[in-house]
Amino acid sequence: MTAFRRLGPAGSERPVVEIDGTVFDLTPLTADIDGAFLAADGLTRAAEEARAGRLPVVDPAGLRIGPPVARPQAILCIGQNYAAHAAESGSPVPEQPILFLKHPNTLVGPDDDVVLPAGSTRGDWEVELAVVIGSRAANCVTDEDALSHVAGYVVANDVSEREYQFDLSGGQWSTGKTFPTFCPLGPDLVPAAEVEPQALRLRSWVNGEPRQDSSTKDMVFPVAALVRVLSHRLVLEPGDLVLTGTPEGVALSGRFPHLRRGDVVEMEIDGLGRQRQNVR
Amino acid sequence: MTAFRRLGPAGSERPVVEIDGTVFDLTPLTADIDGAFLAADGLTRAAEEARAGRLPVVDPAGLRIGPPVARPQAILCIGQNYAAHAAESGSPVPEQPILFLKHPNTLVGPDDDVVLPAGSTRGDWEVELAVVIGSRAANCVTDEDALSHVAGYVVANDVSEREYQFDLSGGQWSTGKTFPTFCPLGPDLVPAAEVEPQALRLRSWVNGEPRQDSSTKDMVFPVAALVRVLSHRLVLEPGDLVLTGTPEGVALSGRFPHLRRGDVVEMEIDGLGRQRQNVR
Repeated sequence: MTAFRRLGPAGSERPVVEIDGTVFDLTPLTADIDGAFLAADGLTRAAEEARAGRLPVVDPAGLRIGPPVARPQAILCIGQNYAAHAAESGSPVPEQPILFLKHPNTLVGPDDDVVLPAGSTRGDWEVELAVVIGSRAANCVTDEDALSHVAGYVVANDVSEREYQFDLSGGQWSTGKTFPTFCPLGPDLVPAAEVEPQALRLRSWVNGEPRQDSSTKDMVFPVAALVRVLSHRLVLEPGDLVLTGTPEGVALSGRFPHLRRGDVVEMEIDGLGRQRQNVR
Repeated sequence: MTAFRRLGPAGSERPVVEIDGTVFDLTPLTADIDGAFLAADGLTRAAEEARAGRLPVVDPAGLRIGPPVARPQAILCIGQNYAAHAAESGSPVPEQPILFLKHPNTLVGPDDDVVLPAGSTRGDWEVELAVVIGSRAANCVTDEDALSHVAGYVVANDVSEREYQFDLSGGQWSTGKTFPTFCPLGPDLVPAAEVEPQALRLRSWVNGEPRQDSSTKDMVFPVAALVRVLSHRLVLEPGDLVLTGTPEGVALSGRFPHLRRGDVVEMEIDGLGRQRQNVR
């Protein structure tokens, strides 16, 4: 198992890679895990250097975990990409991927606090498989071509405030999705070669109680189709994130209360690690 | 009149400022006009240095004009912000600003080609006053506070493909707004102190025929209100762009044909300069 992470205080994280339980410092190779590093096939190179014993070992104990990708140019989000979630949202299954964007400054670490806006009554959680783009992707013709632009995978929480999302911006969803702290990402960026993106269990909990529990095999548009279709709507840049949509089991369904200050949200995707956020 | 510009080939533009007809090279002061430069009050400092004769004079003849702001973290767009345009679009006047985002890599110079996607039949133009954010803005309480975060103003064309915008992404507008080349910006970034943002005539033409001709005084939400409201939905970063919506007179109205290859789009805002794009 190869897991890329960024450790340290917000804004000055250092890149590392954990390979089979040992954590290696990547700073001799790169200042950060960002678009330029990914575009230069940095993940492959870094893992080779670590395996060859050419990187210093570090002790990660006590260090904050940051988002494992720095400064994406865009956070691209897909809506209603699981049929059961579309149903619980009162929406039909989409015929085309539904795209909206978050501001990149929403990005925080997997265990950082989530801060609801003042007066919020409809905060919600959304566990999602996030795709990390590794090279510029435009007009991909085949699914295989599309997947060749994926550097790796990571857990994301597409935090949402439903009143802002649906009622306060004429039905355009970015409002309600783009408050600061609304994109916890990580802990692990796992290279694409080690992930089967359509066979991953995704789960979430609030205050220890189970909420979402589904599999990426239930996606309406699998990762390859999403990247291919998006590449005909825009150019995907190295370091860009594609959040691939959330399965059923969110508060929007009416089956669970919305988030309140003091709640603890946890989410996990098999092989990609676990997040834990305090809601403020 | 003070006009900041970026001149040269795409990706390697050099920053300049024109003051009363003389163009000064800003590279002794800054590598670029970007968020960091704006946050350090670079526009004021640069104009002072130029006026004091401490910057070299350059000849801009023959140089391509780039977008006058480099690498915004986000391009934030407001929809339906003129009542007559909302009406021609078949929409009510919004009660809250409608927000959607473009990928920042849509940015091009004011006279660069606009490239429609393959098979496009519903390309459209939208002249807009764009706000350039100069300092981090969050939770602004007053309009005055909001305006204090504005560095300057610039012309933008919020190029749109209506089939993608309305029919191919579940009603979320970013699709159709975010193709490469869909955000021509410039030519001039004019400091906020020299602009009265709610008293500007905006006009557009296609193949020399007039299309839009309105004033920013007709905005539903003026600039101060937009920045204030947005600052309660997200954190605005230095260098971010806010496209403030378009007035009536676009193809969506049904009164004019959509864009076709070979068309020439021109747009102008009083005091901020004129754009001219060939449509490919």
